[in-house]
Amino acid sequence: MPLEFYYNLISQPCWAIWIFLKLRGIPYTGRHVNVLTDYLKSDEFSKVNPRQQIPVIVDDGFVLTESTAIMKYLAVRYNAPDHWYPADVRKQAKVDEYLAWHNLNTRPFAMKVFHMEGLLTKLTGEPVSEKALSTAVEELEETLCLLEKTFLQEKNFLCSDDITIADVMAICELMQPLGAGRDVFKKWPKLQAWKEKVEDAVGRQLFMETHKEIYEMPQVVGPFPQATALIKFVRKITGLTA
Amino acid sequence: MPLEFYYNLISQPCWAIWIFLKLRGIPYTGRHVNVLTDYLKSDEFSKVNPRQQIPVIVDDGFVLTESTAIMKYLAVRYNAPDHWYPADVRKQAKVDEYLAWHNLNTRPFAMKVFHMEGLLTKLTGEPVSEKALSTAVEELEETLCLLEKTFLQEKNFLCSDDITIADVMAICELMQPLGAGRDVFKKWPKLQAWKEKVEDAVGRQLFMETHKEIYEMPQVVGPFPQATALIKFVRKITGLTA
Repeated sequence: MPLEFYYNLISQPCWAIWIFLKLRGIPYTGRHVNVLTDYLKSDEFSKVNPRQQIPVIVDDGFVLTESTAIMKYLAVRYNAPDHWYPADVRKQAKVDEYLAWHNLNTRPFAMKVFHMEGLLTKLTGEPVSEKALSTAVEELEETLCLLEKTFLQEKNFLCSDDITIADVMAICELMQPLGAGRDVFKKWPKLQAWKEKVEDAVGRQLFMETHKEIYEMPQVVGPFPQATALIKFVRKITGLTA
Repeated sequence: MPLEFYYNLISQPCWAIWIFLKLRGIPYTGRHVNVLTDYLKSDEFSKVNPRQQIPVIVDDGFVLTESTAIMKYLAVRYNAPDHWYPADVRKQAKVDEYLAWHNLNTRPFAMKVFHMEGLLTKLTGEPVSEKALSTAVEELEETLCLLEKTFLQEKNFLCSDDITIADVMAICELMQPLGAGRDVFKKWPKLQAWKEKVEDAVGRQLFMETHKEIYEMPQVVGPFPQATALIKFVRKITGLTA
């Protein structure tokens, strides 16, 4: 059986894997997971991932979660060209360094803004505190500043002059706030130029296709009270209780 | 010049690297960083790490930040026995999976409780909201539950029956709340048994030595108003503004 991929294209880590699977021509069976119901909490899905999250891959019985681990596994196991995840110990360490920073910075701060502006209100119908949102936006701007000045610098891509899995992870996270109408690249021309290089490297059609649901997200109307698992997750991320 | 290690033993990612360097006998020069002043924001330190954080290693001119990336680099570059960070693609992916989950779960939720109970009041003299603390403790308990039931399960260690760098990263994060007098292992007997296995594997003397500053932390008296960089970091982690 080809690799199975449990995903939903509202989830930015899923996009990164989706892009990489398609780009590298890795055969897979997609298993779309509806996150607007409680399927993630079902016994059926808990057997696949007891941590009840997507993305998940199952490769010939081998179950793997966590998008950064999945991206590295796919690059190595399916022999992607070296630049994606270099074998050289120092070049690889620079990609690992970004991926760790990503999970501690890019991901939580971009996700927090998107969840506040785009998701919490849609899911629950509740408005979001302006003060909380403005603090979250400020934290995201600090993250973008560090991304541009300390990772990208004068290079073509975040970790070297060639694209790596780090660029795909980062770009997908930063596309997410678009789902609430926020273009995070506007104030950062170097990050905007980098985004275009990533789009070129990935292919514009694939890039557009992947992010279609996010472009359409502002038109989606809630609330979705049955999405209790997702609502709990969003509250944890935003720190906003009912 | 031997590897340089910028650290402070109040920082749990620094402990993990400290333990690994000593345990593997990797020659290094320690550069102690005072986090109770604004040295992290100084021009001198910003030249080492423009993101103004510890830990950092400098290995023959090669600068690396982010503890999980540093641990993997040290294991590979200094030829640690395979079990620490297995070369096999699937075994390695399971360690990477935990390390990613660690940065998104164990680290933020353990750190949040410690920063609320142990650090914010000491640094600023301000009391912490009981409601915010009880939410943070609840999130940490959920994290411990997943750690025990979905990672450790019936194995000796988190990712296999042998110790890996994932165990060292995890144990150091979970020791930190002790600095505020909270023993997170109390309600989780399997995690307690795992902690003892990690202590045995690492050596009890080294383990005690590393965590000495945390055991002594409840006696430290603040406030430390000059630690503005650390206070800003703690506010960001806890979500508590002045």
